[in-house]
Amino acid sequence: MLEELKEKVYKANMDLVRHGLVIFTWGNVSGIDREKGLVVIKPSGVDYESMRPEDMDVVSLTTGEVVEGSLRPSSDTPTHLAIYRAFPEVGGVVHTHSTYATAWAQAGIDLPNIGTTHADYFHKAIPCTADMSEVEVKGDYELETGNVIVRRFEGMNPMHTPGVLVKNHGPFTWGKTPAEAVHNAVVLEQVAKMASIAYTINPKLTMNPLLIEKHFSRKHGPNAYYGQK
Amino acid sequence: MLEELKEKVYKANMDLVRHGLVIFTWGNVSGIDREKGLVVIKPSGVDYESMRPEDMDVVSLTTGEVVEGSLRPSSDTPTHLAIYRAFPEVGGVVHTHSTYATAWAQAGIDLPNIGTTHADYFHKAIPCTADMSEVEVKGDYELETGNVIVRRFEGMNPMHTPGVLVKNHGPFTWGKTPAEAVHNAVVLEQVAKMASIAYTINPKLTMNPLLIEKHFSRKHGPNAYYGQK
Amino acid sequence: MLEELKEKVYKANMDLVRHGLVIFTWGNVSGIDREKGLVVIKPSGVDYESMRPEDMDVVSLTTGEVVEGSLRPSSDTPTHLAIYRAFPEVGGVVHTHSTYATAWAQAGIDLPNIGTTHADYFHKAIPCTADMSEVEVKGDYELETGNVIVRRFEGMNPMHTPGVLVKNHGPFTWGKTPAEAVHNAVVLEQVAKMASIAYTINPKLTMNPLLIEKHFSRKHGPNAYYGQK
Amino acid sequence: MLEELKEKVYKANMDLVRHGLVIFTWGNVSGIDREKGLVVIKPSGVDYESMRPEDMDVVSLTTGEVVEGSLRPSSDTPTHLAIYRAFPEVGGVVHTHSTYATAWAQAGIDLPNIGTTHADYFHKAIPCTADMSEVEVKGDYELETGNVIVRRFEGMNPMHTPGVLVKNHGPFTWGKTPAEAVHNAVVLEQVAKMASIAYTINPKLTMNPLLIEKHFSRKHGPNAYYGQK
Repeated sequence: MLEELKEKVYKANMDLVRHGLVIFTWGNVSGIDREKGLVVIKPSGVDYESMRPEDMDVVSLTTGEVVEGSLRPSSDTPTHLAIYRAFPEVGGVVHTHSTYATAWAQAGIDLPNIGTTHADYFHKAIPCTADMSEVEVKGDYELETGNVIVRRFEGMNPMHTPGVLVKNHGPFTWGKTPAEAVHNAVVLEQVAKMASIAYTINPKLTMNPLLIEKHFSRKHGPNAYYGQK
Repeated sequence: MLEELKEKVYKANMDLVRHGLVIFTWGNVSGIDREKGLVVIKPSGVDYESMRPEDMDVVSLTTGEVVEGSLRPSSDTPTHLAIYRAFPEVGGVVHTHSTYATAWAQAGIDLPNIGTTHADYFHKAIPCTADMSEVEVKGDYELETGNVIVRRFEGMNPMHTPGVLVKNHGPFTWGKTPAEAVHNAVVLEQVAKMASIAYTINPKLTMNPLLIEKHFSRKHGPNAYYGQK
Repeated sequence: MLEELKEKVYKANMDLVRHGLVIFTWGNVSGIDREKGLVVIKPSGVDYESMRPEDMDVVSLTTGEVVEGSLRPSSDTPTHLAIYRAFPEVGGVVHTHSTYATAWAQAGIDLPNIGTTHADYFHKAIPCTADMSEVEVKGDYELETGNVIVRRFEGMNPMHTPGVLVKNHGPFTWGKTPAEAVHNAVVLEQVAKMASIAYTINPKLTMNPLLIEKHFSRKHGPNAYYGQK
Repeated sequence: MLEELKEKVYKANMDLVRHGLVIFTWGNVSGIDREKGLVVIKPSGVDYESMRPEDMDVVSLTTGEVVEGSLRPSSDTPTHLAIYRAFPEVGGVVHTHSTYATAWAQAGIDLPNIGTTHADYFHKAIPCTADMSEVEVKGDYELETGNVIVRRFEGMNPMHTPGVLVKNHGPFTWGKTPAEAVHNAVVLEQVAKMASIAYTINPKLTMNPLLIEKHFSRKHGPNAYYGQK
């Protein structure tokens, strides 16, 4: 069932390790088959070294129930599902505790767009979510984490800024495919690192807003001219 | 004698190197056989490259005397023993000079719980010990280092916060097994790194205390639901 | 056509990866044949892993048109060309988003010469360019990026300070050959890292200007005595 | 001639690379045969990859002249010789531009002894030298660099604090053998890194001076009890 997607999701999970974004089992990638309404996701707390493509779980987008798979799915599954439900263009979701992006999430502030590296992939600042309430934390916590993310994107285009910092927790990124979501996770970690260094060098640094529009449109939209497309 | 435990302690010592927590011989792991009252520990100042499982020393929990082994045990052995004596659930102890955890120990302040990565493994702030007195330093120094650690945990559950920063020295961590103690040493180094970056980004950051209880209980206690257990 | 130069430019591009200066496709190196007025440059957005020497594009120095090559050249090609046109001794140009040099570019300030490592390769501070205007950004952007660089070097010797920080973007370096331009990119990243740490340790640090002249002349000019030359 | 010492000096130079302390050719190690009054040192500006033991130069301790070797010796040779002449117990000298130690040298302040990692190897703060004068820089510069180091150790035991930061330049370390000098260079880089992080965390941190004496004497002097000696 969904073997091609399982292979892609498996590979995307292994790429998190290859890019140095995860320690132990601290990360997970999922992918969606929109037609079937099914999400493929990494099982919970399983070692990357022993994991195989066929270990990926298949869950229902609407109910979250496991449709196929003998292992319990990632405990973050309800967060992934909330993102898929709210953002219909999303094809893959990633969660990590990567060092610098997590540090910004712990700092609890938006990661500003201060360079073309950021603007090539993310149009706006990477938003940081609000503190979760007692009802949210003590209720269906992982689902509410997704809801907090979705609320934070009200009025924003999630495909133009495909990532978020969950306050005191860590980053989620997404994309049209699981591979693109991983790509964005790597970029987020790198721009988080560069921004932390840049503000240490000059706390009063300024961004030229013209560059944001230029670089974002250079890679996205009808007039994109980067790469071989 | 205790060959299985020697193998585990040996492997745990080698894992410190694999995880990048030690330079030269700056680290040691021990494990305990509670029934026999014997502790297996790395010999002092021996290269990891040439070390073999059979080089591990066996010492008495009560007297500290070497029961088996031709090499002198780690100079930190009395500290390990003090931890085993005071915390009966501990099955393995680790000491390193890993970069960020040691920097916090040199900074001389508790490492605050500011994220879910921390809360998944450590319930409270990682405590930093008090300055040692002249009597302690000039007396049975390594034993007194253990006593300073034990005193710092008065009123705290050492299995819920399985690590400590010895002021101006470095971290000790522990767990139910030597492997778990190493796992906690890796986590401590990572949360120490992320916290140092987070405070640089935002010195006035805040933690949502609800997340601490949620994440700690998600992985520990009767209602844990992380992983495949 | 220009096979030897293609091989050199290919190798220089791969060296960027080997030295850890690029993630994904975020870097490019070019080289010039001054006699023929032709520039060889990496194609746009192509993976380093699958790239071959024969994929390098050949473009005209004067018109920027592709003279040979089936792939679209790097989108930064007009910036490279502007540097070659203005600085006649330049034989190779490098652009990266390397971590610390990019952080300085985002900080938006010149990278001061505060040590002999810097002075061995760069005579002055590595200059940071001015904010680009609306006309420049919305016009022929990549060419204007080159023009902004060239203007910043008015009154400076570009061969004595072979690198620049484009504000909110990243570094460009150059040299007599593509290999030397890569060498200077590695040095720039390293001095950017050391300077960010040094200013964190002591914001009021001072440089001994005598050392700048001594070290620069030790490696450059008629009285150079470093190495085997 | 001195083949055993050449082999040791060669190996020590390669160990600098293995420990990540040098980029390109930015480091050199020497060793001395005190009976013969001869110093073996790395040639200047030679790639580590192509270097062989027989490429090491032999120079006279008293005159600095090359006694054997077809390559020009390291341009830092006169600094090494000044250290050997002034500190009779030194058997090996190392110079690097390692990242954190060089950053402290650029910061221009002594590296304080704030932890047991430091105290295990260096009794005092690692001193930073004074600004060099015009006469020194324009005269026999590399010899004067050695003289500035030697003067900085007036009243200090160079074997108890076997390293120095040359202001705006970088570290030199030494030891009884070339291998020990490299070992001390690795330790210096690590304590420089940890101190820079520790002061970022807590600018008002304090050191317990009792620990300095305890740890230094635990590894050095008549009552040492670390390791298998």
